Amino acid sequence: MSQSDERKIICVDMDEVIADALSEHLSRYNRDFPEQLTVDDLHGRWLWDAVPPARVAALERYMLSDDFFAVLDVMPESQRVLERLQSRYDVFIATAAMEVPTSFNAKFQWLARHFPFIPTSRIVFCGDKGILRGDYLIDDNPRQLRLFRGEGILFSSPANVNVTGFRRVHNWLDVEKMFLE
Amino acid sequence: MSQSDERKIICVDMDEVIADALSEHLSRYNRDFPEQLTVDDLHGRWLWDAVPPARVAALERYMLSDDFFAVLDVMPESQRVLERLQSRYDVFIATAAMEVPTSFNAKFQWLARHFPFIPTSRIVFCGDKGILRGDYLIDDNPRQLRLFRGEGILFSSPANVNVTGFRRVHNWLDVEKMFLE
Repeated sequence: MSQSDERKIICVDMDEVIADALSEHLSRYNRDFPEQLTVDDLHGRWLWDAVPPARVAALERYMLSDDFFAVLDVMPESQRVLERLQSRYDVFIATAAMEVPTSFNAKFQWLARHFPFIPTSRIVFCGDKGILRGDYLIDDNPRQLRLFRGEGILFSSPANVNVTGFRRVHNWLDVEKMFLE
Repeated sequence: MSQSDERKIICVDMDEVIADALSEHLSRYNRDFPEQLTVDDLHGRWLWDAVPPARVAALERYMLSDDFFAVLDVMPESQRVLERLQSRYDVFIATAAMEVPTSFNAKFQWLARHFPFIPTSRIVFCGDKGILRGDYLIDDNPRQLRLFRGEGILFSSPANVNVTGFRRVHNWLDVEKMFLE
């Protein structure tokens, strides 16, 4: 079988792509502080840049708490579309867990619960997605998309609305159209 | 800069390559059972195949225990040679932690303690090393070397003495000669 006959590899990020971490962040932040931040406050900036510097540590603490990842909602349609993608592509979940090492096991358990059809051998925890040998990476983080050597597909999130230079998908229905139609 | 001018990427396995898991396995096994297995008993076979089937579960329990990875010895010369390799190559540590998900954090802490010069962004936990975009993978496991798309370098361990088809290194001095002389 020649290289070109092989199934293409699609790598998929976790946070803000299949796991709604932002909603949980906002909910915990608004419980502890008076600003009542909404998604609309985050257009074009990361949550870390939208809060006073003295409160960034609180955001980091949320992620370190044992129950943070366990309670995250699944992004709409991601389960159905990922399962469909598997019929035609080799799908890997690739998450930059190295910044929050206590999250490894919680993320692994979350995946087992919500995406049981993804073999554990197809899960990758890494810091630099440039190490992935994939054809596509679907990610909300332009920094990781730039490190990646295949084609980066930007998954829309409030923070990345102004980012250009990548094909963009707004949701999982867009992913389905791009890869399966 | 053309592709060929880039620094080559070397991926390095953990267990039996930089971390001496086998000695700890034997030590715990011989504490619990009467066989008094030695490294010589393992020539050409994996530890799992060298013990009675009823005792394989015990081997798995050792790895699940909180202190297993924490106490592993560093393989001789691996620290010095890995640090030297970093001057000329992009070095990633790639470990198949997915089979023992409770080991993520312990492995991460072990690396931070014994290999503090390796950035956390260069650590990869994965199940299938075929996903790595590296030029070389130094690993004792021929299954992972076959999945890998660059050149697999077989790091000698008692179990793999009869494996052929790869360039072989017996220890870290061999690695140093292969990549730095």
